[in-house]
Amino acid sequence: MKIENKLQSLGLTLLPVVKPIANYVPALKSGHLVFLSGHGPVKDNGQLITGKVGYDMSIDEGYEAARRVALALLSSLKAEINDLDRVARIVKLFGMVNCRPDFFEHPKVINGASDLLVELFGEKGKHTRSAMGMNSLPLNMAVEIEMIVEIA
Amino acid sequence: MKIENKLQSLGLTLLPVVKPIANYVPALKSGHLVFLSGHGPVKDNGQLITGKVGYDMSIDEGYEAARRVALALLSSLKAEINDLDRVARIVKLFGMVNCRPDFFEHPKVINGASDLLVELFGEKGKHTRSAMGMNSLPLNMAVEIEMIVEIA
Amino acid sequence: MKIENKLQSLGLTLLPVVKPIANYVPALKSGHLVFLSGHGPVKDNGQLITGKVGYDMSIDEGYEAARRVALALLSSLKAEINDLDRVARIVKLFGMVNCRPDFFEHPKVINGASDLLVELFGEKGKHTRSAMGMNSLPLNMAVEIEMIVEIA
Repeated sequence: MKIENKLQSLGLTLLPVVKPIANYVPALKSGHLVFLSGHGPVKDNGQLITGKVGYDMSIDEGYEAARRVALALLSSLKAEINDLDRVARIVKLFGMVNCRPDFFEHPKVINGASDLLVELFGEKGKHTRSAMGMNSLPLNMAVEIEMIVEIA
Repeated sequence: MKIENKLQSLGLTLLPVVKPIANYVPALKSGHLVFLSGHGPVKDNGQLITGKVGYDMSIDEGYEAARRVALALLSSLKAEINDLDRVARIVKLFGMVNCRPDFFEHPKVINGASDLLVELFGEKGKHTRSAMGMNSLPLNMAVEIEMIVEIA
Repeated sequence: MKIENKLQSLGLTLLPVVKPIANYVPALKSGHLVFLSGHGPVKDNGQLITGKVGYDMSIDEGYEAARRVALALLSSLKAEINDLDRVARIVKLFGMVNCRPDFFEHPKVINGASDLLVELFGEKGKHTRSAMGMNSLPLNMAVEIEMIVEIA
């Protein structure tokens, strides 16, 4: 099954790609790698999910936010490479959780992105990653994730 | 116009490259990519710009600090590749803002680096990036940025 | 001398590689680069070193924690590439220190990892790096480090 069909079967729809309001781009290719900018959790209605995980929202809500970030990343990736089936490997996630100094459950939050990628891409979706706590993120977004992808 | 001449026309001068006082290097090439260490905002007199953006200094001062970081990065890049006109693409910036938990304007700060790179390199200067808030940075520097560059 | 023999002569033993309890992997190859997930400081008995550096523990203890992270990274690297002597260059470290907002000595902490890598690999061990302060890390680990390595 094509990746986009799998997304559909999970009830997920790629987001319209928004041009960043600054001098940078959402994604670019260099050799076989595609680098993706830090993305935030955008709902289907375009609203950003904001707040500190474990304080303004539960870990489960943080997990869901990370899943939405993965969807945003895939939307930008699709715009860059035209076809998500060109993905040879999800190489790396850098998963930043907006939280307070006493929050220690970052992996459970970033799993929201990791789980979606493995659901979609199987073995090719198994990536390296880091998860950590940020004292603040742009526009108070709950989660921000950067991604590197290898394409065939 | 050569990149270094453009820098000059903006009133900017490359900084003398300082060897890190530890077991690491400011920049290194691997294949077509040049990886640059996290750099801080150094004034022409060699002084580091310190403090938390949005608290010890304004967003505009943070923007200026980020611009100085970009200059420091370009100085190390020039030392590594000899000629800034070899840049094929600025691939990625990782822009860390020293701030407090209630600061949400990181993109406006990191724009100081992004804007300079696009002023200098045009389309080749349009990069992917992440911006985020750090609760502290080395020596209390206001901004720290990492960069990846593709060379021809 | 083989790298593993050097490790032994420093009294260090590679750690058993633990499978991450989530949908990600400790390391993966893409072209000539090996990307490693963020790793934490694990003692020989498997216990994680936790706490905020400069508050719950001294800078020297933080340095030792960073050294243990480097050992954990090398353990995962060995599992991925079979032979540590295949390392052509340590490319980059991303060194996150769990600390409070008034801590400024991150480089002294991350030196624990950098020094070990240069002890082991000599010139090939000289890497680019960033060091910064995180307000929190997974499971309250004291230090988390990501690494990129070039292999021959």
